[in-house]
Amino acid sequence: MSDENIVFVGTKPASSYVLAVTSQFEEGSSMVVIKARGKAISKAVDVAEIVRRRYVKDAEVADITIGTEEVTSEDGRTLRVSSMSIVLARQDDRT
Amino acid sequence: MSDENIVFVGTKPASSYVLAVTSQFEEGSSMVVIKARGKAISKAVDVAEIVRRRYVKDAEVADITIGTEEVTSEDGRTLRVSSMSIVLARQDDRT
Repeated sequence: MSDENIVFVGTKPASSYVLAVTSQFEEGSSMVVIKARGKAISKAVDVAEIVRRRYVKDAEVADITIGTEEVTSEDGRTLRVSSMSIVLARQDDRT
Repeated sequence: MSDENIVFVGTKPASSYVLAVTSQFEEGSSMVVIKARGKAISKAVDVAEIVRRRYVKDAEVADITIGTEEVTSEDGRTLRVSSMSIVLARQDDRT
């Protein structure tokens, strides 16, 4: 899977990421990974749900993983932040 | 699994829910389900990560599911909100 199949959810409105994920499926991707950290995790779940309910109805949640990442703050401290990856896959590509 | 094994994450600080989940494991539960909706989903991931990294180190993420629930707003409209369930299970109880 290339990096092009990963959509990072951040501070833009959910609709921006819904469009990005839907476009990747329309361009022929069989799998798209939605990634987020911290407060954006809730938005990533919204994006996955909106894509599979409204736009790419044969897409299913193939896997969800959570973890903790270490990031360095502006003042140099190490902070831990939760992360999540949601793998959406088109049904017809799963065996 | 009884209802006592479910912790609903809402508007309180994450530490409240970390304590609730950890307590359930300490009381002998082999499995605790952490549930959240909407913006609280990010906090639910924090809670799961803090519990398994700091307090119940033999607990693993056994399953994560996402979905969409319909709720009725104060003015009677039906709104859709994302939901998530994270199942934490103690390793020694898994076969």
